[in-house]
Amino acid sequence: MWTGTVLRLGAAVAFSLSAELLCRFLHRSKRPRTLNEVLFFPSKVACVEHVFSPASPHSSHCPLPHGFETSFSRLLRFILSASSSLDLCVFSFSNMDLSRAVLELHRRRVTVRILVDKHYSVITGSQIGALRKAGICVRNVGRYVHMHHKFAVVDNRLLITGSLNWTLAAVQSNSENIIITDEPALVRPYMREFSRLWADNDPSLNAPSTDQTLDCID
Amino acid sequence: MWTGTVLRLGAAVAFSLSAELLCRFLHRSKRPRTLNEVLFFPSKVACVEHVFSPASPHSSHCPLPHGFETSFSRLLRFILSASSSLDLCVFSFSNMDLSRAVLELHRRRVTVRILVDKHYSVITGSQIGALRKAGICVRNVGRYVHMHHKFAVVDNRLLITGSLNWTLAAVQSNSENIIITDEPALVRPYMREFSRLWADNDPSLNAPSTDQTLDCID
Repeated sequence: MWTGTVLRLGAAVAFSLSAELLCRFLHRSKRPRTLNEVLFFPSKVACVEHVFSPASPHSSHCPLPHGFETSFSRLLRFILSASSSLDLCVFSFSNMDLSRAVLELHRRRVTVRILVDKHYSVITGSQIGALRKAGICVRNVGRYVHMHHKFAVVDNRLLITGSLNWTLAAVQSNSENIIITDEPALVRPYMREFSRLWADNDPSLNAPSTDQTLDCID
Repeated sequence: MWTGTVLRLGAAVAFSLSAELLCRFLHRSKRPRTLNEVLFFPSKVACVEHVFSPASPHSSHCPLPHGFETSFSRLLRFILSASSSLDLCVFSFSNMDLSRAVLELHRRRVTVRILVDKHYSVITGSQIGALRKAGICVRNVGRYVHMHHKFAVVDNRLLITGSLNWTLAAVQSNSENIIITDEPALVRPYMREFSRLWADNDPSLNAPSTDQTLDCID
């Protein structure tokens, strides 16, 4: 009788352990690992041609050091990873490499929407005019003293946010930080904030008769 | 024989289910829930006396609306939750309620360390002078064009970071965002960045003979 009981108990333990291992395996394979990365600036000054042209990274004659990753090249990679959409909400946008990345996404038919501070969108060096000319949808936000956000949402999935304006000084000369995360509890509020600001600043609602209020040229 | 087999199988299934439930319960109780909160600004203008004096929230005669939570009162609560340390790294600090919160922590013997942009620490309305006078340790960061961070780490555990400078305009007039998280993958890099900047800007290392370089008065 004892042998039978021990055998039954052994079988039950083996079965439960197998079930537990299977459960853990399924649990792990079901839940993808959350991306949480932090980048600090100023970034080392280096060529970023390899980020734009991975096949021929040395095609342009960039005089800067190259062949290594920097905070800025990481940032560019995250932006260029967009396959369906980029929603950008930024106070100041004058960085030409970041502008090139956004134009590249537009060329690839990624849907790009940009919200900018009304006053900072026209300062010297601003890339907003060039982006508008290329047909990218840009809306001015003018109801606050500053529209001071500096965040982007890639493919409704990946949040890039922090202190960093999209300027050369921010990237190369300031002490700055950004977080890159796909944690839904963080991404979703920013998506809602973008949608709210986008809807609130629809130029056709505010002044439907003026040509200048068009947010996209194409 | 069939009855015995079915009974054994039933016992094994019941055992494994119990083990699984126990495992899940232990798993859940072992891992505390991660805090991930996002606050947007401008905040509604309201009294924050109840945050400072929960026992007697109406002790001061604040003429502003009261009795409800705002983004700003949430931010103040997170700061005032510090029980051992507050490490603050901020470009511009002129908000008097935030200054009051930091002074309150100092009064409670919470270790407060502040890093500020060298040039913005002396602009009109800056609270840095008052905080220094109270004996709080403040170090100037002058080697970048701007020390543009706006983050705080509470009790080496909770990160507060975003676009929001610690000014009245940022809280009441700008479109801004902050993240509050205790996710270690996000908190740790900011703790390291703070330690690096704190060590790099030790005034006694840079100019040991000058009285003005003291970072704490007490």
